[in-house]
Amino acid sequence: MNITIEKQLKHRTIRKFKDKKVDKSILKLLSEVSNHTATSVGMQSYSIIRITDIEKKESISKICNQDYIKDIPELLIFIVDIFRNSQIAKEQGEAILNKNTMDKFFQGFTDGAIACQNMVVAIESLELGAVYLGGILNDPGAIIELLGLPKLTFPIVGLGFGYPDQTPQLKPRMNIELKIFENVYDIKDNYMALIEDYDSTMKAYYTSRGDAKELDKFSQQVIFQLNRENTKRSKILNEIEKQGFNLKVKC
Amino acid sequence: MNITIEKQLKHRTIRKFKDKKVDKSILKLLSEVSNHTATSVGMQSYSIIRITDIEKKESISKICNQDYIKDIPELLIFIVDIFRNSQIAKEQGEAILNKNTMDKFFQGFTDGAIACQNMVVAIESLELGAVYLGGILNDPGAIIELLGLPKLTFPIVGLGFGYPDQTPQLKPRMNIELKIFENVYDIKDNYMALIEDYDSTMKAYYTSRGDAKELDKFSQQVIFQLNRENTKRSKILNEIEKQGFNLKVKC
Repeated sequence: MNITIEKQLKHRTIRKFKDKKVDKSILKLLSEVSNHTATSVGMQSYSIIRITDIEKKESISKICNQDYIKDIPELLIFIVDIFRNSQIAKEQGEAILNKNTMDKFFQGFTDGAIACQNMVVAIESLELGAVYLGGILNDPGAIIELLGLPKLTFPIVGLGFGYPDQTPQLKPRMNIELKIFENVYDIKDNYMALIEDYDSTMKAYYTSRGDAKELDKFSQQVIFQLNRENTKRSKILNEIEKQGFNLKVKC
Repeated sequence: MNITIEKQLKHRTIRKFKDKKVDKSILKLLSEVSNHTATSVGMQSYSIIRITDIEKKESISKICNQDYIKDIPELLIFIVDIFRNSQIAKEQGEAILNKNTMDKFFQGFTDGAIACQNMVVAIESLELGAVYLGGILNDPGAIIELLGLPKLTFPIVGLGFGYPDQTPQLKPRMNIELKIFENVYDIKDNYMALIEDYDSTMKAYYTSRGDAKELDKFSQQVIFQLNRENTKRSKILNEIEKQGFNLKVKC
């Protein structure tokens, strides 16, 4: 155990922030942390759009269906970026044949996601708080238009951060032993029995927050989330194709 | 600056490890770090397969085309996992309609990727070293068979770690200012001029490693990587579909 891991084990999502700016020197430091994250075959196939325009923040708030987003002090959108490298090739007069295949897309997606988490660890190490905004993919087309994203780029996830103005409880997780297997995936035939304790823990968690919900057991939330339909979200591949990626799907 | 960020800024990929086991207490701690990573809508849609079987390690080495992988002390494969939650729903007798849409896939992919990076930070904080193995996606079908992955799961990335037996130089990165934009994507018309310094830095980096290559400038590597063709890699969506995800692509 050390101070880094101690803080990682205390990770909480923060959605309410003090009205206090994050200093430029901190932003610079965080951007360097992002830049030193591992990257697939050295290609650095992601970029970050920092949102400072209040109207754009409001639009993102609406796309995510989360009102608090417009008030987050710092808001970053991480994107897949194969555009930059394809331009570097183009300027050298090279005919590039495979710049737009889906393996390149996934390399960029992974690059951006892990850079974002690296930044989250740094943010929390500085006693700031952060929130992931997966909701930007509720409408990828709208985000692409809003940020003027060129072909061969695509939004991955949003990240909000600032000085916390709340101290939420630690949210319980399902036992890690249900998630780690040795050599082969271990299919169980009694998940409901195996998560019984976790269901009770989650119920107690919501009750103690004074936030008891109809869906307070994890097993109930699962049904809700897996049944949830969002047409634009589920058609994400069509948007990826519009951005110039070759899905290479046999039709 | 603090000790966490100091180490993040010193991140190096380690590919050569001492013949020393990683203690079980450390593995337990790292798994808890993974478990406390942020997760999309609380669903925890990823799992980890720990590879201890030497024949499986050899197979993964071959799939990745990297001989050193078979000797890595600890080898984890992170996977998208919508299977577990869909079974939790099924055991409750619920007809689940949208468990297999691509938004669920991407939620799981992001969950797994960021959990992996969180673990990397913890590993490096303990003075161990790590390597990402993107090569597992050279042949997703082979990985799926090797690990017995059920429907609604899919490999994301591999992670090797252990005690470092090398001290590589810090690999230079492209200036972060070329990767961070404000409010809108900033398209440049002179990338080659903008990365001229970086090209020289990379050339010097490879020369000082005694590892001068034909493709020692970044701009040359870009051409090589974007032209590179790997048929199985580029058809990743076909494998995702075989795993039961509904691509929802108009044909």
